[in-house]
Amino acid sequence: MSTKDAGKKKATVEKVSPKEIAGRIKKTAESMVTEINKNQDPSFTTMQRGKSNVVWNEDKGYLALGEKEIKRTFLNIAHARKFMQTTLIMNKAFDYLDHNKTASIREIYYELKHTIEGTKENTFEGQDESDPIIVDLEHAVDTIREKLNLHANPKGTLYGNITLLDRMHHNDKFNAAKLGRGGWSIMSRLEPEEIEIVDSDAEYLLVCETEAIYERLIEEGFPKDNKCILIGTGGQAARGTRRLIHRINAELDLPVYVFTDGDPYGWYIYSVIKQGSMALAAHSEFMSVPDAKYIGMTIEDIKDYKLESVTEQMKEGDIKRAKEMLAYPWFQNKEWQSELKLALDQKLRIEQQALANKRLDFVATHYLPEKIKNKIFLP
Amino acid sequence: MSTKDAGKKKATVEKVSPKEIAGRIKKTAESMVTEINKNQDPSFTTMQRGKSNVVWNEDKGYLALGEKEIKRTFLNIAHARKFMQTTLIMNKAFDYLDHNKTASIREIYYELKHTIEGTKENTFEGQDESDPIIVDLEHAVDTIREKLNLHANPKGTLYGNITLLDRMHHNDKFNAAKLGRGGWSIMSRLEPEEIEIVDSDAEYLLVCETEAIYERLIEEGFPKDNKCILIGTGGQAARGTRRLIHRINAELDLPVYVFTDGDPYGWYIYSVIKQGSMALAAHSEFMSVPDAKYIGMTIEDIKDYKLESVTEQMKEGDIKRAKEMLAYPWFQNKEWQSELKLALDQKLRIEQQALANKRLDFVATHYLPEKIKNKIFLP
Repeated sequence: MSTKDAGKKKATVEKVSPKEIAGRIKKTAESMVTEINKNQDPSFTTMQRGKSNVVWNEDKGYLALGEKEIKRTFLNIAHARKFMQTTLIMNKAFDYLDHNKTASIREIYYELKHTIEGTKENTFEGQDESDPIIVDLEHAVDTIREKLNLHANPKGTLYGNITLLDRMHHNDKFNAAKLGRGGWSIMSRLEPEEIEIVDSDAEYLLVCETEAIYERLIEEGFPKDNKCILIGTGGQAARGTRRLIHRINAELDLPVYVFTDGDPYGWYIYSVIKQGSMALAAHSEFMSVPDAKYIGMTIEDIKDYKLESVTEQMKEGDIKRAKEMLAYPWFQNKEWQSELKLALDQKLRIEQQALANKRLDFVATHYLPEKIKNKIFLP
Repeated sequence: MSTKDAGKKKATVEKVSPKEIAGRIKKTAESMVTEINKNQDPSFTTMQRGKSNVVWNEDKGYLALGEKEIKRTFLNIAHARKFMQTTLIMNKAFDYLDHNKTASIREIYYELKHTIEGTKENTFEGQDESDPIIVDLEHAVDTIREKLNLHANPKGTLYGNITLLDRMHHNDKFNAAKLGRGGWSIMSRLEPEEIEIVDSDAEYLLVCETEAIYERLIEEGFPKDNKCILIGTGGQAARGTRRLIHRINAELDLPVYVFTDGDPYGWYIYSVIKQGSMALAAHSEFMSVPDAKYIGMTIEDIKDYKLESVTEQMKEGDIKRAKEMLAYPWFQNKEWQSELKLALDQKLRIEQQALANKRLDFVATHYLPEKIKNKIFLP
């Protein structure tokens, strides 16, 4: 990749301004008003969620939401409460966009929670009532919550020769290789209008499941020696971290290699980064990285690197999970079928940090360079 | 505080060089060798741990370890395995110090795990065997694991006008107010020999339990307007984060205010930051902040700020925890007794983010400034 190519690939998809999103919310609200003025029952249309409306888009290489819609009307007694909640969320999200504010999904819940005047009815009883309404709105106006100025908690760290610019914070421009060994704390929301990826000379992005391996690779000087960007997810990648991985792949056109523990949980982390998740199937376009590759750990590694003494037994949950994975459409290739069957056959798992059994720096001096040089990836 | 005072207060305590620590390990090993050469049973002495040897040091304002020692000898069949493990950990920690390497406590476990030649015996069966040995060694050479170049996982973020310098990473010098809204990802280990606190014009340090409130305060420009440093712990503070809080307090002589949810878990987070924990009683000198103050949330806040509609019921575990806290020596003051009794009486808890019920920016424009101006703290 070169800096001049930055932003080329999927930039058009991303360029929906906050004003445009606010406009879509307004239009949805206006259509309700029109219905009321015509003495019709006001309605709200969103997408059906759940397994029955999730499709595996093989062409695009990610999970997507199907075409099934649901329509909610105010005068239907089974819909009235949710309809009320929807208009509250619409109103507040519009406000956020209008005033350039952002909020966590817990804050919007607290901000909107109150007892409706003259009744004993609360607008929301818990966040489990407001969260699904936020998703309804995301789908109704065809966007992600980050573009509604909403976000969940941040998690994840960034290190390496990549320069970011925060337009909303004194135009700070900083390079993530120059923050000592700590790196940058990835924000919960980093939309392109606010956080610009300025440039990078990196040749690939390495995503690590554990922060311990992230710290190890920094201590060994791996990102510098290998011209790569490093992201530590600290387990399952948070939405902000997935967005950043997606954007680095799309805007800088960099290959993404994912490095997790060799167990079903690690493989699931990989598959969510690559193909998206059932729960967020509608957002794969903004979040997924269909051309990501899996670099390890694999069950084959145990023999190849003589790690027999540092494996662990798979637990019942791992075994169940691995069996489910065998059946997923996106694991229907001979490499993953063979890996999953080997895991189930041997009932073993292997952690990233188990490579320390060779030597602390083995992961940086041998394991990763060899795999990258010889393209030993799972698809 | 002023920059010129930096490092004054407790700097002497901190200034134990890696060479000095390595020397202590060597001395311990040499005394074993001397015993062997005299045909004596080699021995290793460390501190007894657990509640029976934890004392509340009221003068210093923190939990400390008592005087009780335990002696382990190689030829005692009940000690032999642990003795072998101790020498392995000593040897490896010495190596790390000697070669300027650091490792996570999981890595040292994996690095040392192997089957002893000619036997079927593994050096370690699990990390639950190596972790306590690390603590034994910390106590035997009177230090913390960070000074043995060992660390657990990192967690926590830093924001605000404070400049750090990483001597081990190209002497990077960076200001945590100039990294956009994300801030700096706090390392798992930040000893003064490696990470220098260069300067800060802040007037206090605000520690927040939730990353969501950390992001809120940054969005509102709170740290800049109020000249403070912000740390988000993301729940219970990790060791690296506790070290940094301690160092900012000690070296910059800044007051520390802790801001958590108003519930026993939040209060426990506060008490660990302030007085240390039972498990790490020996390390309070390096970790605790006896003059920290608690800024909120409190059960009184519910009435004072009319937050009745956004409280939650305490769960059974909360109630049990609050009752235990009532009896802790370090909660024996009228303010905390009154707070805990009020919580138990009303059986309510209140989250930081519940302040959004007033307005998103209420926490930044009213709640915190009023408490700080009027010194409304719990001790």
